[in-house]
Amino acid sequence: MKVNRLGLIGCGLMGGSFALALKQAGLVNRVVGYSPSDSTRTKALTLGVIDEMAASIPQAVQGADVVLLAVPVAATETSLVALAPALDDQALLMDVGSTKHDVVQAAQRSLGHKLPCFVPAHPIAGSERAGVEAAHAQLYQGQPLILTPTELTAAPQLAQAKSLWQALGCQVKSMTPQAHDATFAAVSHLPHLLAFAFIQGLSGQPQGADFMSLAGPGFRDFSRIAASDPVVWRDIFAANATDVLQQLGHFRRALDAFENTLQAIAKHPTQTPNSPNADLLQHLNTLEQQIAQASAVRSQWKAS
Amino acid sequence: MKVNRLGLIGCGLMGGSFALALKQAGLVNRVVGYSPSDSTRTKALTLGVIDEMAASIPQAVQGADVVLLAVPVAATETSLVALAPALDDQALLMDVGSTKHDVVQAAQRSLGHKLPCFVPAHPIAGSERAGVEAAHAQLYQGQPLILTPTELTAAPQLAQAKSLWQALGCQVKSMTPQAHDATFAAVSHLPHLLAFAFIQGLSGQPQGADFMSLAGPGFRDFSRIAASDPVVWRDIFAANATDVLQQLGHFRRALDAFENTLQAIAKHPTQTPNSPNADLLQHLNTLEQQIAQASAVRSQWKAS
Repeated sequence: MKVNRLGLIGCGLMGGSFALALKQAGLVNRVVGYSPSDSTRTKALTLGVIDEMAASIPQAVQGADVVLLAVPVAATETSLVALAPALDDQALLMDVGSTKHDVVQAAQRSLGHKLPCFVPAHPIAGSERAGVEAAHAQLYQGQPLILTPTELTAAPQLAQAKSLWQALGCQVKSMTPQAHDATFAAVSHLPHLLAFAFIQGLSGQPQGADFMSLAGPGFRDFSRIAASDPVVWRDIFAANATDVLQQLGHFRRALDAFENTLQAIAKHPTQTPNSPNADLLQHLNTLEQQIAQASAVRSQWKAS
Repeated sequence: MKVNRLGLIGCGLMGGSFALALKQAGLVNRVVGYSPSDSTRTKALTLGVIDEMAASIPQAVQGADVVLLAVPVAATETSLVALAPALDDQALLMDVGSTKHDVVQAAQRSLGHKLPCFVPAHPIAGSERAGVEAAHAQLYQGQPLILTPTELTAAPQLAQAKSLWQALGCQVKSMTPQAHDATFAAVSHLPHLLAFAFIQGLSGQPQGADFMSLAGPGFRDFSRIAASDPVVWRDIFAANATDVLQQLGHFRRALDAFENTLQAIAKHPTQTPNSPNADLLQHLNTLEQQIAQASAVRSQWKAS
């Protein structure tokens, strides 16, 4: 299973952390890294993330038995086109993109007879921090990792991909690209969209900055993901727009129900729950039930 | 400034942590606690949160130089009515409620000539955990604390309230009850509403549980507050429904803008950002700018 030569395309948080984790586990002999940015390549070398800088994508891929593509989603297809001719027929090629249907389509267009080498991968790990400076060997430890093999993915490559990520401490699962994208529209992409919209709605108010100066730990955690990288998230939303819009529909229906209840409560002259009349009492009970359902579900969610 | 006898009405997370913090700072001689629940009172005594159990609200208040009311919002007015006759004219009375306009109105109705004793307070601290078992002496350390004095609040009581919370490590600020409620509708109540609605929209889908089994750290932090107590939040939303609905309007306008952009992108036959046409490119730029605004604001928010 040990990797002789890892070709790393993209030396940021995700790619850099994969290289560091393999190194710490003693599972790689040599890491050759390429990044379009000179300063990133140099930093990656200085920080010991890579052992050798490549001047181009083909140079990073040449002679590698494992290639990890860890570039922004928008750069995936051009990177695949560039690496395909240099890729060894027996090599394992993986990506780390947050959407999978679009990546698989790009691979089908770009890889030709090298398509069996490709095992699309999505490690469920990350940070609102980005860049090679944020890379660390424990990023993937204990985290889920999703593989979305195509019908043409070769069995040896799929097996090696599983072994490698498991050796780094990941819980590896396989699913179709479509199921993957529906899942992450629901639990990742939609929350990001809501967090971005929340901060926009807040900061667009004249008093927004004053309001935020008094925000506490609930605000901090709820809005943390709103600090995520704009280009990364533009591309995720664009690649998975249909699934995200569908999840947004589910959210809107739940939000409408809450809003209707609040409007009914706000219409009552006495809004406090003291001595409520029967009508107000019914709305308060509805509100409590709506919250209690969500609270029970979230309380029972896996601790992590 | 030292408190001779603290009358604690409500021995849960907020009240219990205040008592423990005063004790740790050596700022209180004796804590007499009341809770409507026998088991909470007994636990509070066993855990050393209180020194003596009171059998009623008046008994907890009798002879106290400081009284802290730390009960659910819905119990505020009946508690104020019960404590008013037993309250010393020179005592300091505070609450810890998350809404202030309704509490001030309840105090005006209930306290009569004892109203000058009352300094409405809101510590910006908490946890999705509740109960006396969750109380700890560091809960308020380094956190903001808002005082919303009324026109009738006496100067000595206001000064003592400031001193006490500052001694516990709080950054004390004063504002009107109306400004307070508008602020926390924006940075606390709305995020809770969105988190509850998000979990409801997600868990209402047949695949909701499967989706959530693969959720990562973004989901964990974004939805943490959805595990909050249903009765507490029913009462907060009911007490501050008008301000929350106004904030919801701001959020909806921002969300609508995102949704419009995503719908425009989804209509294009090629949704990936590779070789986009001019129209798609414009929507992608709009999306990036929308995200970038939010990301910049959130990135610059105080680290805490």
